[in-house]
Amino acid sequence: MSSNYRSFRKSVPWLILFLETVFIILFYFLFSGYNASISNISYTDFQDVNNMVIFGFGFFLAFLKRYSFSSTGFNLLIIVLGVQCSILMEGLLVLLLREAKEGDLKIITTAVVSMTAVVISSGAVLGKTNPIQLIVMTVVEVIVFQASRWINKRFLQVPDNISMMHVHLFGAYFGLAVSSRFSEPSPRSEKNASTPKSYLLSMLGTLFLWVFWPSFNSVLADADKTKAIYNTYFALAVSAVTAFTLSVLTTMDGKFRMTHVHSAALAGGVTVCYAAESIDYPWIAMILGLLASLITILGSFCLQRCLNPALKIHDASGVHFTFGLPGLLGAVAQVVLLVIKKWTVLPSLGYVVMIYIGAFCLTISVALITGFITGLILNFKLLKIIPVSKYFEDHFYWEVSFRVKLTMWEYI
Amino acid sequence: MSSNYRSFRKSVPWLILFLETVFIILFYFLFSGYNASISNISYTDFQDVNNMVIFGFGFFLAFLKRYSFSSTGFNLLIIVLGVQCSILMEGLLVLLLREAKEGDLKIITTAVVSMTAVVISSGAVLGKTNPIQLIVMTVVEVIVFQASRWINKRFLQVPDNISMMHVHLFGAYFGLAVSSRFSEPSPRSEKNASTPKSYLLSMLGTLFLWVFWPSFNSVLADADKTKAIYNTYFALAVSAVTAFTLSVLTTMDGKFRMTHVHSAALAGGVTVCYAAESIDYPWIAMILGLLASLITILGSFCLQRCLNPALKIHDASGVHFTFGLPGLLGAVAQVVLLVIKKWTVLPSLGYVVMIYIGAFCLTISVALITGFITGLILNFKLLKIIPVSKYFEDHFYWEVSFRVKLTMWEYI
Amino acid sequence: MSSNYRSFRKSVPWLILFLETVFIILFYFLFSGYNASISNISYTDFQDVNNMVIFGFGFFLAFLKRYSFSSTGFNLLIIVLGVQCSILMEGLLVLLLREAKEGDLKIITTAVVSMTAVVISSGAVLGKTNPIQLIVMTVVEVIVFQASRWINKRFLQVPDNISMMHVHLFGAYFGLAVSSRFSEPSPRSEKNASTPKSYLLSMLGTLFLWVFWPSFNSVLADADKTKAIYNTYFALAVSAVTAFTLSVLTTMDGKFRMTHVHSAALAGGVTVCYAAESIDYPWIAMILGLLASLITILGSFCLQRCLNPALKIHDASGVHFTFGLPGLLGAVAQVVLLVIKKWTVLPSLGYVVMIYIGAFCLTISVALITGFITGLILNFKLLKIIPVSKYFEDHFYWEVSFRVKLTMWEYI
Repeated sequence: MSSNYRSFRKSVPWLILFLETVFIILFYFLFSGYNASISNISYTDFQDVNNMVIFGFGFFLAFLKRYSFSSTGFNLLIIVLGVQCSILMEGLLVLLLREAKEGDLKIITTAVVSMTAVVISSGAVLGKTNPIQLIVMTVVEVIVFQASRWINKRFLQVPDNISMMHVHLFGAYFGLAVSSRFSEPSPRSEKNASTPKSYLLSMLGTLFLWVFWPSFNSVLADADKTKAIYNTYFALAVSAVTAFTLSVLTTMDGKFRMTHVHSAALAGGVTVCYAAESIDYPWIAMILGLLASLITILGSFCLQRCLNPALKIHDASGVHFTFGLPGLLGAVAQVVLLVIKKWTVLPSLGYVVMIYIGAFCLTISVALITGFITGLILNFKLLKIIPVSKYFEDHFYWEVSFRVKLTMWEYI
Repeated sequence: MSSNYRSFRKSVPWLILFLETVFIILFYFLFSGYNASISNISYTDFQDVNNMVIFGFGFFLAFLKRYSFSSTGFNLLIIVLGVQCSILMEGLLVLLLREAKEGDLKIITTAVVSMTAVVISSGAVLGKTNPIQLIVMTVVEVIVFQASRWINKRFLQVPDNISMMHVHLFGAYFGLAVSSRFSEPSPRSEKNASTPKSYLLSMLGTLFLWVFWPSFNSVLADADKTKAIYNTYFALAVSAVTAFTLSVLTTMDGKFRMTHVHSAALAGGVTVCYAAESIDYPWIAMILGLLASLITILGSFCLQRCLNPALKIHDASGVHFTFGLPGLLGAVAQVVLLVIKKWTVLPSLGYVVMIYIGAFCLTISVALITGFITGLILNFKLLKIIPVSKYFEDHFYWEVSFRVKLTMWEYI
Repeated sequence: MSSNYRSFRKSVPWLILFLETVFIILFYFLFSGYNASISNISYTDFQDVNNMVIFGFGFFLAFLKRYSFSSTGFNLLIIVLGVQCSILMEGLLVLLLREAKEGDLKIITTAVVSMTAVVISSGAVLGKTNPIQLIVMTVVEVIVFQASRWINKRFLQVPDNISMMHVHLFGAYFGLAVSSRFSEPSPRSEKNASTPKSYLLSMLGTLFLWVFWPSFNSVLADADKTKAIYNTYFALAVSAVTAFTLSVLTTMDGKFRMTHVHSAALAGGVTVCYAAESIDYPWIAMILGLLASLITILGSFCLQRCLNPALKIHDASGVHFTFGLPGLLGAVAQVVLLVIKKWTVLPSLGYVVMIYIGAFCLTISVALITGFITGLILNFKLLKIIPVSKYFEDHFYWEVSFRVKLTMWEYI
């Protein structure tokens, strides 16, 4: 198997180079110059999101003791490929469907934001995919997510910034469906363990994500960016507090668990993303943050014990309860808030509610189905799945000098 | 004791949840919607300060080898609680005293800036407090600091942005007074030691703080933000240079000491905070930076040998010489600069000088007295002080798998 | 030798203090107040560049297992000294040559950007210079680089922002010339090895640099900042992809090498810096990014095997292929793009081309000659070169407690 993989490995770079060449040629045909039309996105907004995705998620996922090179490195690789792919999809839509062309900064920012889906999915199969599988997954997911957004926009009239916020839901369920096709690691294996140092690296990424999440939720907001920022901040604050609280309640001897803090502190930001612009009072955002944190920690408790073993899903970094469940909660909350707010005003309320529910059900269904198919494709002989014994190992992909490895990896 | 603490631990989450519920209810009554009035604070300014407090201070305090989880984690916890508390205080002031309501971004930014006091105080008792004690300290300190600022503003007519800059002084002396009520760790204990890796984490936080300090000093500036930025940058630059110089002079065999660089490189920013807006020439800021660094390193030399043992204070992360003394120097420097500048112009100079001196004396006195009382409260049986033998131990609060702990903590 | 060094060390701080005092006095005479003239540089732009230089480069260079204190610490020291020196040079030019005075933010930003040259040069001699040598090198390099820019501007009429982008070329070749005067470390020595943890720290710095590079290339741009941002982003994206690809192709058994990713992912940003403002199509930037990555990885392959041993140069952190060769490619690319674009328009094309080629040839020549001379000066008995056996050792300069050192440095 390993020699198979090695011979296969020789074809890896040519595949990536081929893909990159195709991208450059498509850019040549699709982008006939820059379009500096004014948008309400500033370079600083873009930079915050870029920072989150490259730096924040790179280190957020670096919690496996032997997989930190791959976590941060492959994260960079799939994002830069995915962003190009996403921009090209946008260009194709403009060309084929004669949609209005947006400003360049909006296109790039949208591409970077939509990469969150890919990063979340890659978290679900963290340590189990080789780079080629990751790249194939990235390209497929970017295309499907763009298509799903386009359907949302065209047929369900969902506004652009709301359809974009399905990114967490899509990423989580696509990733889960993909991961269902990968075998579980041996339960006695300690390779996918974490050390205090790797948790600390992950904390570094988490704090980065936490600080920049208000930018993420407001970057594509149309009307009221500042409201989106405040609501996100309050939701994040309360969910961080709740994360600590519930962690003590759910662990054996009343200690804090680092993974709880990592995932639940961010849950508020995920939940509030749909309604961030429309919530008028901080206390609503705060309650959403509290519920988000609650659902995340209860989810981590229940899913890991009941659902995942039953469905034979191994969710390597807990994306289901970190992004999936809070996203679901947020989508439901948005509908509830809409109903409460417009109870008397809107005669066609039922229709609007159906549209919103339809939008996120559609997104999840598309994610699950295409994710499952992608999982099947990734396990084709051609893409040479790596043996389970080589899961979660940096040195299978990276040059790590053996002497160092022994001392370093064993003792830390 | 340990079993006591465990039974106590079960009540911890309910206390936090209760507090959070009270906060949400108060938010419901006090904030009837967002107030998007224009202020001269941009989201980027807020983001810089937020980044400093959450990320910068979190890692700045992560220099203890076995306490990095708690340093970064509890830092997040107390800040998110404190920010909510501080915003509520502001709302109460508006409600009860009919003060003018400020823009939301200004309120949140002010809350985040004032959390620096709590973070500095938590540095003074780093490793010696349990989460409940930290939370009680946070709530008390936020309330007292707001009250002290309000007195400054109302009775001494100190401008808002100057009274805010007392945050370093208040934090340091409050923390010192609190820490005087905690027993010292055994001098032979090596638990509160640092390793090169933990110093490096702390360096990461320090560099973050260093880079964003000009934002901190200028964020609440009224008139001349750019001048505040330049002066802070120059003061920081010179104090970084001086930190290296004096470190060589004060250590045994002429080597650099990492803690000197950490604290003295930031001293310039602390010192110049009062006068940042009013200094007209870079060389004045530079001299202040030099003096700040000097006072920090001499302070670290003298305090640790003479004053602290005499007063039986164990200042766990040296907040006295990192924030206290440079803050004092800055307050004095502001007065001196004012006297020089307005020597001929102002007839009532003496009165103004008295006001400024009164303001920081009052701040320090309030900090010392309330800090001392808080220290007493924190040592009530109810708040169950942890045994000295468990100081500086992450695994007392966090799930750290024992096997990993043994290899990890022992060898690093 | 060691005792020699120790006695010498006692004079170190006085030298730095003397330098700092001279700086403050010069600031007193040269800067008679702040000049808040409007420029197209915002504080956020400056902050991004400041962050890159202090934080990004500090950790980018922290890849040696025993030299991370010095990498991050001395980086801060030389930058703060160099920035002051660079600002003073600007002030002297205004005073002596009656040049127009620029806005303060422009002056400080220019100073921080030009420090990149010094940081790159310090990378070439990383681990081999003592602090005094570094400071002397910094002061000399800042003065020579400013002079070289002034010649470019005055006699070759090169625009300010283009002459500034010679910073990579200048830094790399100056550093290489300096490093040619330092003896090579023993090839069997393992002191200049890296560990996975130190590579990860370096990855942290690299990702920071990668994210903020578009700010770096656009900060001094005159006309079209956004175009500079897009082109840099696309070039960086493609060079990151290519870095992974070529790394697999050039290593023995088809694995990724971390150093390849570190240097080649940034190469696109270096290459595109000259033409960032004038490239009209993303695909051109992308091709430049691809070529930059190619030249970096091939360069790292060829230089380390052929050229460096032949010339007896030990390029400690590969600045030749990380910054030198991509910079060269960028300078050539700029000329080629100019020729293609203005083929028919400009009658005096030949003259313009000669000017551009002249500018970068002059820069490289000045860098090589002055670097060589600086290397000679640094090896004077007076500046007491450290013994080769003490290269790459933090504990030669920093207090690292021996007990910790043994366990820490040996096992990690």
